Amino acid sequence: MTSDLPRRLFAELLGACLLSATVIGSGILAVQLSGGNDGVALLGNTLATAAILYVLVSTLGPVSGAHFNPAVTLVMLLRGDVRPAAAALYIPLQVGGCILGAILAHVMFDLPLVQEATANRAGAGRLVGEAAATFALVFAILGAIRHRPNDVPAVVALVITAGYWWTSSTSFANPAITIARALSDTFAGIRPADAPGFIAAQFGGALIAWLAGGWLFGKKTP
Amino acid sequence: MTSDLPRRLFAELLGACLLSATVIGSGILAVQLSGGNDGVALLGNTLATAAILYVLVSTLGPVSGAHFNPAVTLVMLLRGDVRPAAAALYIPLQVGGCILGAILAHVMFDLPLVQEATANRAGAGRLVGEAAATFALVFAILGAIRHRPNDVPAVVALVITAGYWWTSSTSFANPAITIARALSDTFAGIRPADAPGFIAAQFGGALIAWLAGGWLFGKKTP
Amino acid sequence: MTSDLPRRLFAELLGACLLSATVIGSGILAVQLSGGNDGVALLGNTLATAAILYVLVSTLGPVSGAHFNPAVTLVMLLRGDVRPAAAALYIPLQVGGCILGAILAHVMFDLPLVQEATANRAGAGRLVGEAAATFALVFAILGAIRHRPNDVPAVVALVITAGYWWTSSTSFANPAITIARALSDTFAGIRPADAPGFIAAQFGGALIAWLAGGWLFGKKTP
Amino acid sequence: MTSDLPRRLFAELLGACLLSATVIGSGILAVQLSGGNDGVALLGNTLATAAILYVLVSTLGPVSGAHFNPAVTLVMLLRGDVRPAAAALYIPLQVGGCILGAILAHVMFDLPLVQEATANRAGAGRLVGEAAATFALVFAILGAIRHRPNDVPAVVALVITAGYWWTSSTSFANPAITIARALSDTFAGIRPADAPGFIAAQFGGALIAWLAGGWLFGKKTP
Repeated sequence: MTSDLPRRLFAELLGACLLSATVIGSGILAVQLSGGNDGVALLGNTLATAAILYVLVSTLGPVSGAHFNPAVTLVMLLRGDVRPAAAALYIPLQVGGCILGAILAHVMFDLPLVQEATANRAGAGRLVGEAAATFALVFAILGAIRHRPNDVPAVVALVITAGYWWTSSTSFANPAITIARALSDTFAGIRPADAPGFIAAQFGGALIAWLAGGWLFGKKTP
Repeated sequence: MTSDLPRRLFAELLGACLLSATVIGSGILAVQLSGGNDGVALLGNTLATAAILYVLVSTLGPVSGAHFNPAVTLVMLLRGDVRPAAAALYIPLQVGGCILGAILAHVMFDLPLVQEATANRAGAGRLVGEAAATFALVFAILGAIRHRPNDVPAVVALVITAGYWWTSSTSFANPAITIARALSDTFAGIRPADAPGFIAAQFGGALIAWLAGGWLFGKKTP
Repeated sequence: MTSDLPRRLFAELLGACLLSATVIGSGILAVQLSGGNDGVALLGNTLATAAILYVLVSTLGPVSGAHFNPAVTLVMLLRGDVRPAAAALYIPLQVGGCILGAILAHVMFDLPLVQEATANRAGAGRLVGEAAATFALVFAILGAIRHRPNDVPAVVALVITAGYWWTSSTSFANPAITIARALSDTFAGIRPADAPGFIAAQFGGALIAWLAGGWLFGKKTP
Repeated sequence: MTSDLPRRLFAELLGACLLSATVIGSGILAVQLSGGNDGVALLGNTLATAAILYVLVSTLGPVSGAHFNPAVTLVMLLRGDVRPAAAALYIPLQVGGCILGAILAHVMFDLPLVQEATANRAGAGRLVGEAAATFALVFAILGAIRHRPNDVPAVVALVITAGYWWTSSTSFANPAITIARALSDTFAGIRPADAPGFIAAQFGGALIAWLAGGWLFGKKTP
């Protein structure tokens, strides 16, 4: 991260936009093609999301750290790996980028630009799922930074690949993308009413991972 | 593995828990989504399991060795790569972690916390399958340690990817996860009555791999 | 790229041929096997395309740069990474190679050698999709060259994996292959009438990526 | 390949056996699970085959070269990379190992140990497909040996991943495994009457790749 601040901010905005457009766009196409078999649709959605994560973390990681995720930025702030002033700029750009990505997906598929999602994702089980998913994401990032720094792109892509299937929430694991998904009444959508619970669970899971990962991988715990 | 013992034990417990939750949780979601096509369900189950294995072996391998599997720990004990006192602690934590993972999966999907599996997995063919699966897993680990030590995470993930499809037992290849799967009446389940045979076949396959791998890859054979 | 010019030209021709034969051939087989579920078909098409891209970029990249794509060659020309005389030879060989690949696919599947595609891919949304897809491809290449040069094959394979699903156009992202696909009335086809718009959008997306990537990754911007 | 001859021979036998058991076994399970959707079945078959190839080439490549394939051994013999005496032992062990793998698959799935396949794979298109598939395999191996020697396992796994989909023959690309598949009346089977044509096409494709690859990648051409 030796880039200057404008490049870093652009990287976060662009990365969040492409990530969000991939998550939402691949969900739309997958449902169109899969003839009602949501398992097939989720396979396509998973491949696309994992693939773009590898690409974005590989290419933008050296520029901005490739967070694209306020929960990750919070943990990096707590670890002292990003400064408060930068974090305060990262987070709104992540949210804005994810919303732009949703709009881009809708443009590509000739849908209304901004929508209100109706997918019901309520329930305590899903909140546990979302906390577990974000825990796994942050824990994996901290472990990879410590033990296989060149492998962070693969680890991030694969922890989300697993998360799309093993958690009952299909692993949003990102407050910015949760907001964008609330604006898309498609496969990847989430009712606005269910979003705050998801976001709270995500930050909770991230903080637990910060504590556990800090102890296990040996850097800056409280 | 320069970590102290508490960190090593926590890594085994946590890794076994996340592995088991992924195996069982992804099976539950895959069946919910796949409209009765078990091939689609197994694709999702495979992707999730392989992905989390890569993540866990990458990040926890340098801490504890990332066994998560009593059959692997036994072979490492026979090779002198882990001490008896540590092995005696690893194995119950692996079993406990896998059971916790089953419970976590059930919590996420709003199911009874502990169940008795009813999936019939009897038959001599499946026992051969399970021995072959565990042979392949341990053989691959020994070969990768010897010839591509940085590649152990990929080799482990991919030998299980193959095993889920080429063996008639779908490659449990792990006594701890076999016990956990006996407690889950879901896609990944196994009748308690069938578990002891699976576990015996797993240890048998692991020991054959230890002999063959020791000779072929050149370390500490009897 | 220390190879002499004949080897470089042969590499572009052969690579374009194998890429095109894979894109079109895997589409044909996938539709034959998938019982009308186009999601399953696209999964097979995606795996095959990504896999051959990794293979071709790995093995032919050190020979010719492994462009196989006039939009990529244009950007490399603008960057000064390929000379005008070579670029003027690369592009017709890429187009010819892709057409040969379509013919090879048709031979293998006992179909008429050259066909007129009928797949309707009109619409503004798809043009945005194609521009976005080619932007992502070129941007990822520039980022990988700058930050992970050994990883270009994986990044190229994965940005196309994602593109097949997240863009409404399924990410042709290559003018040469667009021409070849117009000659194949199969899963991968595109009506000749829709091809010019796709190609214009591809060059547009590539040029935007050249500008953005040049600034972000720091090499030769205008 | 500094191993002594017995280890090398055992590696070829074992590798061929596990490869063949994976190809055939995963085909059997995939058909059982996929409810008549052969696209889903081929996805499972592809994942399993690619995964075991990565594992076997990674771990046994440093022992024997990990040919498992008479067409590859022939090319290595022509290149002077393996001696005639060793090649004469490799080839029967590859055939024997593949037959053992078929038997192992049949044992695991409680099927007759040796069968006569009935799958009709006749037709000129498929012979072109098989020649193209083996060309691509050998060409990719020669390119990877020359330019990315550490990456041979991934290149081999991925060229077969692509081949399973882009060729009309689904890319057997291996005379030893063709013989074994003739003994299995399952998803991966081939009528004995169709096998000689496949094998001839495989050797033909391999020899063309030897000539083209030798020129392009610069080692020992005639």
